[in-house]
Amino acid sequence: MLEPYDDTYFMKKALQEAQAAFDQGEIPVGAVVVIDNMIIARAHNLTERLTDVTAHAEMQAITSASNYIGGKYLQQCTLYVTLEPCQMCAGALYWSQIGRIVYGASDERRGYEKMGTTLHPKTKVERGILAHECEQIMKRFFIDKRGLN
Amino acid sequence: MLEPYDDTYFMKKALQEAQAAFDQGEIPVGAVVVIDNMIIARAHNLTERLTDVTAHAEMQAITSASNYIGGKYLQQCTLYVTLEPCQMCAGALYWSQIGRIVYGASDERRGYEKMGTTLHPKTKVERGILAHECEQIMKRFFIDKRGLN
Repeated sequence: MLEPYDDTYFMKKALQEAQAAFDQGEIPVGAVVVIDNMIIARAHNLTERLTDVTAHAEMQAITSASNYIGGKYLQQCTLYVTLEPCQMCAGALYWSQIGRIVYGASDERRGYEKMGTTLHPKTKVERGILAHECEQIMKRFFIDKRGLN
Repeated sequence: MLEPYDDTYFMKKALQEAQAAFDQGEIPVGAVVVIDNMIIARAHNLTERLTDVTAHAEMQAITSASNYIGGKYLQQCTLYVTLEPCQMCAGALYWSQIGRIVYGASDERRGYEKMGTTLHPKTKVERGILAHECEQIMKRFFIDKRGLN
């Protein structure tokens, strides 16, 4: 049976958020939070706009999802994010006890896996969904920034 | 010469913030951010009030300090916080490139040192300022919560 609401579907939604960040001159990372195939939060990186290092897509998505469900814990939720979370965001996901994290591109320098950040023991992780697209939007951004195109 | 604005002075201000959290039924952690002996941000834990695991004292203090100085980076600032930061907060402090972190009580279970979170290489850390007072307010809180007093 065709299942329209799969990980690829929701990662495309996260990529739309990343594109919105790109269009505003923000490092293009996007995220959505999903519960029972419903998107309850959408966010993208806003560190430049808000002049705030804490304004990563994941942080805003966690705040927004908690607000939607009226509770601090996100055990029933899946976070889709275009880039592997950093230490800060993985630390926030630890506190949220999120059920599942699905990310696109790996961040081999500053991703939580390399940095050794601990997730909640019940959190499942899926890697590499639309990894190529998620990497490409980052590459395009930094090429544009450096005036190399 | 007497120096009224020392680490103990500012940690007392962070403790006042922790007391404000205590009075609202929040886990009593407080923080202030200081630049040139001036407090530019004060914050306390608001995770219950805001139903948001990201609302730790340090996260709000970083956002508030960045807002005050109009820049994302806090290299000239010192953060005073009553409890050792967690992975999330240490991850945010990494991005902020904060000049100095002074904390009171250690958090041997969930503190960033035990968890292995990386700070910015230029960030200096001072531990144990008013540690007893910072521990006591946490102990009082959890004793009250469990109805043991």
